[in-house]
Amino acid sequence: MSGRDLEAAKDLEVYRRQGLGGSLGRQPPFGLLVVDFVRGFADPAQLGGGNIAQAIEASVPLLAAARAQGWPIAHSRIVYADDASDHNVFSEKIPGMRVLHEEADASQFVPQLAPMAGELVVRKTAPSAFFGTALAPWLTARGVRTLLVAGCTTSGCVRASVVDAMSWGFRPIVVEDCVGDRAIGPHDANLFDMRSKYADVAPWNAVAESIGIAA
Amino acid sequence: MSGRDLEAAKDLEVYRRQGLGGSLGRQPPFGLLVVDFVRGFADPAQLGGGNIAQAIEASVPLLAAARAQGWPIAHSRIVYADDASDHNVFSEKIPGMRVLHEEADASQFVPQLAPMAGELVVRKTAPSAFFGTALAPWLTARGVRTLLVAGCTTSGCVRASVVDAMSWGFRPIVVEDCVGDRAIGPHDANLFDMRSKYADVAPWNAVAESIGIAA
Amino acid sequence: MSGRDLEAAKDLEVYRRQGLGGSLGRQPPFGLLVVDFVRGFADPAQLGGGNIAQAIEASVPLLAAARAQGWPIAHSRIVYADDASDHNVFSEKIPGMRVLHEEADASQFVPQLAPMAGELVVRKTAPSAFFGTALAPWLTARGVRTLLVAGCTTSGCVRASVVDAMSWGFRPIVVEDCVGDRAIGPHDANLFDMRSKYADVAPWNAVAESIGIAA
Amino acid sequence: MSGRDLEAAKDLEVYRRQGLGGSLGRQPPFGLLVVDFVRGFADPAQLGGGNIAQAIEASVPLLAAARAQGWPIAHSRIVYADDASDHNVFSEKIPGMRVLHEEADASQFVPQLAPMAGELVVRKTAPSAFFGTALAPWLTARGVRTLLVAGCTTSGCVRASVVDAMSWGFRPIVVEDCVGDRAIGPHDANLFDMRSKYADVAPWNAVAESIGIAA
Repeated sequence: MSGRDLEAAKDLEVYRRQGLGGSLGRQPPFGLLVVDFVRGFADPAQLGGGNIAQAIEASVPLLAAARAQGWPIAHSRIVYADDASDHNVFSEKIPGMRVLHEEADASQFVPQLAPMAGELVVRKTAPSAFFGTALAPWLTARGVRTLLVAGCTTSGCVRASVVDAMSWGFRPIVVEDCVGDRAIGPHDANLFDMRSKYADVAPWNAVAESIGIAA
Repeated sequence: MSGRDLEAAKDLEVYRRQGLGGSLGRQPPFGLLVVDFVRGFADPAQLGGGNIAQAIEASVPLLAAARAQGWPIAHSRIVYADDASDHNVFSEKIPGMRVLHEEADASQFVPQLAPMAGELVVRKTAPSAFFGTALAPWLTARGVRTLLVAGCTTSGCVRASVVDAMSWGFRPIVVEDCVGDRAIGPHDANLFDMRSKYADVAPWNAVAESIGIAA
Repeated sequence: MSGRDLEAAKDLEVYRRQGLGGSLGRQPPFGLLVVDFVRGFADPAQLGGGNIAQAIEASVPLLAAARAQGWPIAHSRIVYADDASDHNVFSEKIPGMRVLHEEADASQFVPQLAPMAGELVVRKTAPSAFFGTALAPWLTARGVRTLLVAGCTTSGCVRASVVDAMSWGFRPIVVEDCVGDRAIGPHDANLFDMRSKYADVAPWNAVAESIGIAA
Repeated sequence: MSGRDLEAAKDLEVYRRQGLGGSLGRQPPFGLLVVDFVRGFADPAQLGGGNIAQAIEASVPLLAAARAQGWPIAHSRIVYADDASDHNVFSEKIPGMRVLHEEADASQFVPQLAPMAGELVVRKTAPSAFFGTALAPWLTARGVRTLLVAGCTTSGCVRASVVDAMSWGFRPIVVEDCVGDRAIGPHDANLFDMRSKYADVAPWNAVAESIGIAA
């Protein structure tokens, strides 16, 4: 065991002792949020990398199942104005996002997960899909109680959206194989945080089984 | 180098290549947010542990300096209603927090960082000190542009507050030695995320020097 | 017909022609929000007057029915900190509210509508009971779709709360005889606006009949 | 004096006695928000009427002055998705708004007040320009303390935006001749409410003089 692994083991021990990591159960009705699966984040040469490509592929059956179930489905994208009028602290911190304009190739949804008519498209300029958007009222008006979350990046917009989903009164389930990040260390660390404090975290086949539908 | 360290090195490389981790500079006026430094989080037998005790001590000169500068200062605490009427998804996920009542010993500010008259006390039931509170308008009405953040836990309420601070239009500076967590792995991982994507992260003496005041 | 009445008639005509004023129906589950029925607003010598006293009495059977139905029930009060640390633009605009401290007689709920254990008490420093509070997530987590609203003042905190209720995805019903104002002109004008654009407006016996319960 | 006028006089008296209607002064820096001045609201045959056309003309010199001063300027429009995916309680209450799509003629800004590059365009689906949008952080990040408000309708989206502006920590000034409504009764009633409780209300030449610039 490396020093780091020992530390991780000790971390788990304090979390267990303090009662973190419990499950939120499975409270219907369900909804699905797909965070920022756009071309720029699918491409390692732009803002992607790591396990994002696999998470996109793993999300195809998840999205199909959500549609078959008739769940409310929302998809978020980062979109900055062409004239840079809405630049903010986030785009100042990460200048690479400033190219994510409405019509830019990098900010188009990946084709295998393209929204269908009637699914909500959330344009945002902050990490959380709930921040500065009408996502929370949209889910509330549709009666959603538990929100499955897929998307990228795990350590960025997924994490921020999951914390907000919980804060806004929804029970988040992070679909583990359907979230990805440009680097595995932050991916794992954020799954650990979310599982401990904010959400259930499980792969799609386990989630599907737990709510009694086909994966 | 262990496999994990190699991976970490690779993580840093992709972050550097994609232009993450830039500095937000030092834009006055400044404010200070102290997150959840209450007795229950100072006590390893309750919700504390790790390096939280050291972060509390390190925050004493930070708070003194903020007062000497006349900055707006806010302190957050988690407070649930005595009758459990406001229980939410967060308190369901972490049942240990349900004891944090208005008068409970565990939810009193640590004495060395007790708020003074005129400093804002933010009662909250979500990770972020901005969520479901009047903190953002309070800072806006006082003209704050850059928000120094101390408190605990780094991987929990500090991280959530920093993401929201940035989203609400403030430039966050995480005062590195003044934030703590019950476990070092999540502490480090969340400092990495915040430094990469949301905030400047530096120890108090470096922050003080960068804005031209005594630490 | 006075000039003012003629104008009012014309107003109604343009509203009708543009399709305003439709009904939102009756979508369960229901919840109840009681806005600011505290002693200071019940007392004409302080912040009260007009028809507020009658609205308080009319709300007694409404609250009893909501309890009998087991609906989620929330009560809001304006509470400013004893040390004035949270003064804001609202308290600057209306200095008379600054006395509404946690323990002040003026900010205690009127006894006939005192909250019971398990009902949410919302402390606020803005007109809307949703602003800077955890009311929206509390209702969302309890599955509420339609929100009955009682309280005062019609032209102030009731109106602001109703606009926010609608914006947050709830269907507001203003219980007409259970809302009151310090002056009848603004009371009527705001009922007109809410009925036209944001909510259903009807007296309690009609609301009760429309959802099939005893008034 | 008609009964209604007597009542109005009594209303004013109770407001005066309770200390409502004070001024918020003139705290720089300033910003400008222009609410929903689009073709559909300029046209009496669609959603317009009343004094909206005059308010649009009166806003031309206001917008020119704001530009000359270099103030942050934001313009809001109601925009619903072409596929109706984001319909909400508001669009259910007022079906006539559902035609306000991104490219619809009715939702284009009136040409005399068209935004210039660098001015923020806020797309919204709720009455308030602050609701579900990034307007508040945009103003905060630019240091705005006092927000001048023009637009329509006075009794709808202007009123909701002014209440939120105040709640978010900005000092609102309603530019009286630059706001309009489809009907004069609600216009006047809402100016009364805003002047009493949320904002300063004055015509542009008086506002300009009070802050020392040319009208």
